[in-house]
Amino acid sequence: MASNNAPIVVLDSGLGGLTVVQALRRVMPGEQIVYFGDTARLPYGSKTAATVTSFVRQIILYLQPFGSKHVVIACNTATALALPSIRKEFPMMQITGVIEPGAKAALAAVEKLANPVIGVIGTEATIRSRAYVAAIQKQRPEIKVVARATPLLVPLIEEGRHKTDPLIRLALEQYLQPILEQKPAALVLGCTHYPILRALVCDMVGDGIAVIDSADQCARDVQARLRERDALQDPTPKELWLRCFVTDDSPRFATLASRFLGVTIREPEVVQPDLLYAGIVAQSPAELVAGAGV
Amino acid sequence: MASNNAPIVVLDSGLGGLTVVQALRRVMPGEQIVYFGDTARLPYGSKTAATVTSFVRQIILYLQPFGSKHVVIACNTATALALPSIRKEFPMMQITGVIEPGAKAALAAVEKLANPVIGVIGTEATIRSRAYVAAIQKQRPEIKVVARATPLLVPLIEEGRHKTDPLIRLALEQYLQPILEQKPAALVLGCTHYPILRALVCDMVGDGIAVIDSADQCARDVQARLRERDALQDPTPKELWLRCFVTDDSPRFATLASRFLGVTIREPEVVQPDLLYAGIVAQSPAELVAGAGV
Repeated sequence: MASNNAPIVVLDSGLGGLTVVQALRRVMPGEQIVYFGDTARLPYGSKTAATVTSFVRQIILYLQPFGSKHVVIACNTATALALPSIRKEFPMMQITGVIEPGAKAALAAVEKLANPVIGVIGTEATIRSRAYVAAIQKQRPEIKVVARATPLLVPLIEEGRHKTDPLIRLALEQYLQPILEQKPAALVLGCTHYPILRALVCDMVGDGIAVIDSADQCARDVQARLRERDALQDPTPKELWLRCFVTDDSPRFATLASRFLGVTIREPEVVQPDLLYAGIVAQSPAELVAGAGV
Repeated sequence: MASNNAPIVVLDSGLGGLTVVQALRRVMPGEQIVYFGDTARLPYGSKTAATVTSFVRQIILYLQPFGSKHVVIACNTATALALPSIRKEFPMMQITGVIEPGAKAALAAVEKLANPVIGVIGTEATIRSRAYVAAIQKQRPEIKVVARATPLLVPLIEEGRHKTDPLIRLALEQYLQPILEQKPAALVLGCTHYPILRALVCDMVGDGIAVIDSADQCARDVQARLRERDALQDPTPKELWLRCFVTDDSPRFATLASRFLGVTIREPEVVQPDLLYAGIVAQSPAELVAGAGV
């Protein structure tokens, strides 16, 4: 059984999952976090379930020495394509994703409405999986879900364009228009990159539509599960609380990481994908510090 | 020594390299081609030299049983980041890329001009490598090269937007404007995806600027090298001439493949990246036919 001191593992295709790390830190400032961004093989959003599941499996195996008390799949695509089978493969581990929390937050926003419409935007793979539709309609089958793949948003965000850039605005207008025509009461930002565009999206859709991202709800759900198991760390913020792994040492890491996390972090540790395939596991799991304290 | 009947291997991060296959087929209709698209790990354009080189190495090793007579790295990023070291690792193999041919075609276009300017667009990694600048200035050091990363063009093309889409036009305008201000005599499309936008780019830059893509020059160079070694196949078009491997069976394969190749092709063979890491090699190399005749 993992101790209260064990870290929470957060894994993602790249760096967008740092928005979830930020939310976890806000909700549980005493917890230590191990982050893994699969930057050599990103994006996941255009790939198949078999491929994405094999990537996620390798990362979980690599990080097993940390004895984490909870694993968050902080990537909508990986949650949609891999979470159900990964849970079956690792029945002893606590593993959650970002889609159930996103759906839950959207349902809360439309709770008092009769026959509401909920819009969802995400990667091609997330939308094709219909995971949000299933998660929402499992609770309220009468809700109409209008889901739309918006594959340009991640590259637009990663290019570091300013939010006033006409290209971002035009792309959003094109993507949102068919959703807005259906008069949604809520719009789910179904990708961990999208909160970066939150202010712009809110501005474009107007006050009547609740714009939902799953990071906060995801963090609150993790907190509730840890509390239930009496596995919360004491809430004193630790100075060394984050250790970051990536599979490719992108020169964009520092810029993107600070954009998603809101604070500057040190250089991540690079794990060549070859090591993942060879079944090598993480070294020095006790030292959360090495190279990645914030 | 590879026989004349041996195939030409073409490798790419994804499907853009099929534009090179198309050019090879046009120039040498009698040749058989083995294509490998690393769709599970694409794109290469945002990744490091170490990572991209390890991917290319694995693919070359995987395809070794084909005993190819020539290997074309049909991806500008992989050429820029991996070709020099890959050539040293496989000194017995004939390996060429797409950057030297692209530079050569651009130099031919500005041959008669004094102090011309050449523009280049490509992925982040290609532009950062300065491989085009080096290839051009090695021949004519006085030429000014204006190179610009245009990372949105690949996702825009892969999304299948029509060329009249205002988003494509706006992105191109933004990217091309600082290049056009330098009054280039030629513009190199430094990514195998970009020929899809060729007509639009020509339209936007006007008649005075030669728009260069490396596919044709690359195919002619391969032909010249094979002729020099007396290794050309007889030019009768073979019915079964193409065998395609991919690392992820993207549902977009058929659509994108026909867009890049100009003809419809059958389902590709899927090679899990795990097999590449494990050092497994291609089966039935003699059967060019299986599953991928056009």
